[in-house]
Amino acid sequence: AGVFCAQDYEALAAKALAGATMAYIAGGAGRDQTLDANRAAFGQWSIWPRLLRDVGAGHTRLSLGGPALAHPLLLAPVAFQTLVHPRGEIETARAAHATETCMLASTLSSFRLEDIASAGGPTRWFQLYFQPSRDATLALVRRAEAAGYGALVVTLDAPIQPASLRALRAGFRMPADCVPANLAGLPAAPATAEPGDSRIFQGMMRTAPGWDDFDWLRAQTRLPVWVKGVMHPDDAAQFVQRGAAGLVVSNHGGRSLDGAPASLRALPAVRARVGKGTPVLFDGGIRCGEDVFKAMALGADAVLIGRLQVYALAVAGALGVAHMLKLLREELEACMALAGCATLADIGPDCLLPKPA
Amino acid sequence: AGVFCAQDYEALAAKALAGATMAYIAGGAGRDQTLDANRAAFGQWSIWPRLLRDVGAGHTRLSLGGPALAHPLLLAPVAFQTLVHPRGEIETARAAHATETCMLASTLSSFRLEDIASAGGPTRWFQLYFQPSRDATLALVRRAEAAGYGALVVTLDAPIQPASLRALRAGFRMPADCVPANLAGLPAAPATAEPGDSRIFQGMMRTAPGWDDFDWLRAQTRLPVWVKGVMHPDDAAQFVQRGAAGLVVSNHGGRSLDGAPASLRALPAVRARVGKGTPVLFDGGIRCGEDVFKAMALGADAVLIGRLQVYALAVAGALGVAHMLKLLREELEACMALAGCATLADIGPDCLLPKPA
Amino acid sequence: AGVFCAQDYEALAAKALAGATMAYIAGGAGRDQTLDANRAAFGQWSIWPRLLRDVGAGHTRLSLGGPALAHPLLLAPVAFQTLVHPRGEIETARAAHATETCMLASTLSSFRLEDIASAGGPTRWFQLYFQPSRDATLALVRRAEAAGYGALVVTLDAPIQPASLRALRAGFRMPADCVPANLAGLPAAPATAEPGDSRIFQGMMRTAPGWDDFDWLRAQTRLPVWVKGVMHPDDAAQFVQRGAAGLVVSNHGGRSLDGAPASLRALPAVRARVGKGTPVLFDGGIRCGEDVFKAMALGADAVLIGRLQVYALAVAGALGVAHMLKLLREELEACMALAGCATLADIGPDCLLPKPA
Amino acid sequence: AGVFCAQDYEALAAKALAGATMAYIAGGAGRDQTLDANRAAFGQWSIWPRLLRDVGAGHTRLSLGGPALAHPLLLAPVAFQTLVHPRGEIETARAAHATETCMLASTLSSFRLEDIASAGGPTRWFQLYFQPSRDATLALVRRAEAAGYGALVVTLDAPIQPASLRALRAGFRMPADCVPANLAGLPAAPATAEPGDSRIFQGMMRTAPGWDDFDWLRAQTRLPVWVKGVMHPDDAAQFVQRGAAGLVVSNHGGRSLDGAPASLRALPAVRARVGKGTPVLFDGGIRCGEDVFKAMALGADAVLIGRLQVYALAVAGALGVAHMLKLLREELEACMALAGCATLADIGPDCLLPKPA
Ligand SMILES: Cc1cc2nc3c(=O)[nH]c(=O)nc-3n(C[C@H](O)[C@H](O)[C@H](O)COP(=O)(O)O)c2cc1C
Ligand SMILES: Cc1cc2nc3c(=O)[nH]c(=O)nc-3n(C[C@H](O)[C@H](O)[C@H](O)COP(=O)(O)O)c2cc1C
Ligand SMILES: Cc1cc2nc3c(=O)[nH]c(=O)nc-3n(C[C@H](O)[C@H](O)[C@H](O)COP(=O)(O)O)c2cc1C
Ligand SMILES: Cc1cc2nc3c(=O)[nH]c(=O)nc-3n(C[C@H](O)[C@H](O)[C@H](O)COP(=O)(O)O)c2cc1C
Repeated sequence: AGVFCAQDYEALAAKALAGATMAYIAGGAGRDQTLDANRAAFGQWSIWPRLLRDVGAGHTRLSLGGPALAHPLLLAPVAFQTLVHPRGEIETARAAHATETCMLASTLSSFRLEDIASAGGPTRWFQLYFQPSRDATLALVRRAEAAGYGALVVTLDAPIQPASLRALRAGFRMPADCVPANLAGLPAAPATAEPGDSRIFQGMMRTAPGWDDFDWLRAQTRLPVWVKGVMHPDDAAQFVQRGAAGLVVSNHGGRSLDGAPASLRALPAVRARVGKGTPVLFDGGIRCGEDVFKAMALGADAVLIGRLQVYALAVAGALGVAHMLKLLREELEACMALAGCATLADIGPDCLLPKPA
Repeated sequence: AGVFCAQDYEALAAKALAGATMAYIAGGAGRDQTLDANRAAFGQWSIWPRLLRDVGAGHTRLSLGGPALAHPLLLAPVAFQTLVHPRGEIETARAAHATETCMLASTLSSFRLEDIASAGGPTRWFQLYFQPSRDATLALVRRAEAAGYGALVVTLDAPIQPASLRALRAGFRMPADCVPANLAGLPAAPATAEPGDSRIFQGMMRTAPGWDDFDWLRAQTRLPVWVKGVMHPDDAAQFVQRGAAGLVVSNHGGRSLDGAPASLRALPAVRARVGKGTPVLFDGGIRCGEDVFKAMALGADAVLIGRLQVYALAVAGALGVAHMLKLLREELEACMALAGCATLADIGPDCLLPKPA
Repeated sequence: AGVFCAQDYEALAAKALAGATMAYIAGGAGRDQTLDANRAAFGQWSIWPRLLRDVGAGHTRLSLGGPALAHPLLLAPVAFQTLVHPRGEIETARAAHATETCMLASTLSSFRLEDIASAGGPTRWFQLYFQPSRDATLALVRRAEAAGYGALVVTLDAPIQPASLRALRAGFRMPADCVPANLAGLPAAPATAEPGDSRIFQGMMRTAPGWDDFDWLRAQTRLPVWVKGVMHPDDAAQFVQRGAAGLVVSNHGGRSLDGAPASLRALPAVRARVGKGTPVLFDGGIRCGEDVFKAMALGADAVLIGRLQVYALAVAGALGVAHMLKLLREELEACMALAGCATLADIGPDCLLPKPA
Repeated sequence: AGVFCAQDYEALAAKALAGATMAYIAGGAGRDQTLDANRAAFGQWSIWPRLLRDVGAGHTRLSLGGPALAHPLLLAPVAFQTLVHPRGEIETARAAHATETCMLASTLSSFRLEDIASAGGPTRWFQLYFQPSRDATLALVRRAEAAGYGALVVTLDAPIQPASLRALRAGFRMPADCVPANLAGLPAAPATAEPGDSRIFQGMMRTAPGWDDFDWLRAQTRLPVWVKGVMHPDDAAQFVQRGAAGLVVSNHGGRSLDGAPASLRALPAVRARVGKGTPVLFDGGIRCGEDVFKAMALGADAVLIGRLQVYALAVAGALGVAHMLKLLREELEACMALAGCATLADIGPDCLLPKPA
């Protein structure tokens, strides 16, 4: 079985990994409804082929406020990468370096953010989860600044993460040695349940961040603060007003609220609400270059690659991730060429046609 | 096979019960068209995730006119529960008690309504079927009053109940010892077919109640009289005008008119017609917390749980029912938390997005 | 395997008949696209349940211009019934008699129209196919008049009948003894193909009737002349203007133009065009009482039963057809009762709700 | 397994050809999304049956600017036909001759265009691919003129042709002896990749033609120049303005941009934009006469037959192609007759009804 397209790493990963591990990675929250919706949403759009356009000087360069990027494919934050490869995020960082890709290191990485930084290229962002105490959160921020991360991406869509029924049924349990290296030594949230308390409301949600925490975070750092997990346009507008550097339209790859709309469905509404001024990234369900093209046409400035990254890492480490990114980039370029788009700026809503109902 | 979500009791029940019994319970009238529509209707809606909302003081309390309820999950009236568990409704009543759940005891229960009342908690309603004679109906009402039931829920959508082809094909026959304990001693409807008469019109429908019977019933009792089985908004308006305490939008779980719309489809129209003043309950196809959330967003004040109740009862008696309710409630709370709703009052139409056609 | 509903005769017929014969009867023209569309169209509509309506005096009587009919189920014209039962149309006629059903005898019956008349009840219509010569057509009309048929139903939608691929692939060939008894002795159409001629246009369509033939036919007889096979509202209007007694909206059960719309799709448009004055019958895809109800709600005054008739005949002769009709009628009555309709006149568009896309 | 309709050659070809070869021919680019959309689009439309229309003088003749054609079925340009039959295009040309069909010879034919011309009938067009140098392109044009081709059809939708994953997975490789006979001796495009260059933009697309090349081509020849591969109405308008003789609405049978709309979807928009004056051909997904009818109703003057041609060639050479064309033509005629259309001019949008969503 050769690798003819970026998505081919999916089937290979399914062979390389234990069934339960694959279920955990591939699955979504609950019944996979949002996971499936994410994929299905791409099928709602067709791409207009255009003829005789001159794309000989074409390229995929862009800037997201920082240094120029060679292409709009970013590596999504993915926790605990030793789950699929012994050198986990270190390999991913090397692949990012080799392919001039911006990598988002997760708060929950298997390796320390400083080690990931040393292994990788110049463009790296840090994905932040709020910690139960502001001190702990601040400690992470300071370390990310020190390690040269160029932006903070605070993920807000998973204050609780409903279990994946697929993973549960497959018997998945996180291996004992999969621990968040960055959090070593940080205090755990104190348990304070009282009789009659809800395990959800007074339990898990008790230490969840609020709008004031977001404002506080922004005030602590000069790094641009992006927000990951935005779906509703009203939330998007709030974040822009409160000074977010940019938004990532995402439903956590279907791993948070099962029943949430496809992220591609939310994308045009968010873009319409925030206007041209705010950079908007997107993730959720991207498996091929045409998917990337559609997301850009519907308002994304660039996209994050989640599961494809994990699959390639599982199959062939840094080499796999680099190869997957190269394939995906060429798929995007071929799509651009046939759609008559020489640059990312040429990709707009006019390039698409909604499928009939 | 563990139980990871409320619906997991369905598969376990399918193993625990005889095939024919399972077919009878799981099936709908006729070809299961309404049964299937009930489930499919939930798939037409997505739930907006919302970020950074403060739900730390969240809860699921509500009042339906009587004493406060801890949560909006009621146990739907289900006939003949000894079909799946030797202690039938007694077990269900205990589970209701333990989980602070309002139970609706069916006219057609395997145990007498008085026995169910003694076994259960403080919140219980009585589901009434009109009997062929007003005397017989009145006798039931008086007994329900005496046994401390807090409301009457008169079910009107099944004057005839077309057979379930699934159950027939599976060879289901109601066991001889499954008899309606409450009706012992009450007169049966006299058979008066004449040549040329229709078995339906002049037969089964001859003793079906009319609007005057509803008015009569209301005049007999001080208990609030709810109507179960309302689908058409015009009927809903009539009942409100004639003094119904509240409505249950329901198509009997797809067990009455096969071809009726999904009950979820009728819900917003009924709510729109009766306005905010009238309490509206809902049932039909609820299998997980997100379903409950959607029903509440589309206009329900609370929901009834039918088959899930039976499945859990079949698998593990009172413990099963209580466990199922606990799971379902937590699923609802998790969904509320991720949708940014701290209380039931926060759940409204704005929380949903219709799926694309 | 018992018979629990009218459609159960379908599965039994599939066992009773040779595979090729079943394919011929069950199949449609070409790829079965219209056949499948006919069935699917019923799924586009739901039926509103209504409560507390008084239907104790309900009935299904109607009149179509002639003597009152006990119910709105007519037996569609079906050719060559000895294909499935040795006594073919004779059995069908007996069943019609026993169930007070109006039978439409096909021009292409295995028995002579006179013999069918003697075997059957008082209500019978004759389905006419135009013959290559007007003399031959007129001879059939006179015989039908003489045999007491109460109306002529001229079928116009099958001047050519594209082969059923399903039947061809199953190897079906019409048995040599299946011949049109009514046409014995009538001249065959002269073959006059010239080189370069189209087998379709100058061949099969050469002797197809035109509007003048329809006018001529009406002028020849005092019998009411119905038209079967009307789909387009413009054609419907033309026939009414030219004096048709009534219309049968039909696409020949999907056996003529493969790709034609579902007949149920055409029905409301035809009814809207011709208004209330003209009786409109319907056939195509009816398999249960709810289907009958939907057709009546969308504009039909009564319906024809095609394949169900053949299946029941194949399984159990006259008894089968009578039993099937009894079941279907009860299914309709139960549906009427639950939809709150005491008479056919109560069944209207307001009884239905379109399914969401 | 007999051949009962034109499409039956598909299943026979699947048996006659090696699996990998069949995958290459049947497959589309990438994931077959456009390929599948092409087929599915026909299912979105129904055809109105019409009654009593006089089609006895019916025919399928048309003119596309040149000599009259007997029917609107043209043989699409298909490269390398020795892949499926040793005498490849020679056989196809013979079939075209025998059935009075216009054949479009591909630039990439296995035989020289002069040999195809000698083998075929009077009506032949030449499908042109722009060559890396204008000299090479001009050489092809001159040869086509000399060999009596009546029109040039320049295909513009495949400057790059993304691989078919189906073919790759089936292990397909073009056999070494499948070479473009017409291009023998023509210079290959010089490879000039520089470090950092995109294989797509600066590689494959570097020598792709532009609008100036199209203008240049038109100026070189008196032959009418058609454009094949038009999908977007804006491109269509441009070509008309720049003097294209006609357009072929096509997405290369789903073999170019995977994700492009169904060609049938683009057809009405193109027709609406260019108006009645410009001849518009269509291809993509046609498998039966009803498909041809629908394409004509939605704006096509005639259609090209791609894969059906290859399948019939693979199964039975010239005889197969001729038989397939005969079947397809009769399917079209039967459809016209039942839709009440005596000539192609009678086939219009009013003949169709969109399917409900
Ligand atoms: C195994 C796994 C772990 C993830 N861990 C994180 C994480 O630590 N932080 C985060 O913000 N998102 C996390 N995500 C979500 C991804 O960043 C991303 O939003 C999602 O995978 C995009 O969807 P896709 O997988 O369909 O591309 C994770 C996703 C997966 C599959
Ligand atoms: C086995 C069974 C018995 C039922 N018996 C009654 C009954 O006695 N009275 C009544 O009003 N509804 C009865 N129902 C309907 C339920 O109260 C409820 O409306 C329905 O089950 C809700 O749909 P669900 O099962 O999808 O939750 C019954 C349903 C089932 C499945
Ligand atoms: C086997 C068979 C033979 C038929 N023969 C005739 C016929 O002779 N004359 C006619 O007008 N319609 C004929 N029809 C069409 C029926 O009258 C009727 O329109 C159709 O069967 C209705 O669809 P249904 O079978 O789904 O009920 C025939 C249908 C079948 C299935
Ligand atoms: C095997 C194969 C080879 C083809 N080669 C060419 C070609 O050389 N030039 C061209 O313009 N189109 C080519 N096409 C596209 C066809 O001309 C046509 O657009 C397409 O096949 C129509 O779709 P259909 O196959 O569904 O009928 C080819 C198609 C196939 C299947």
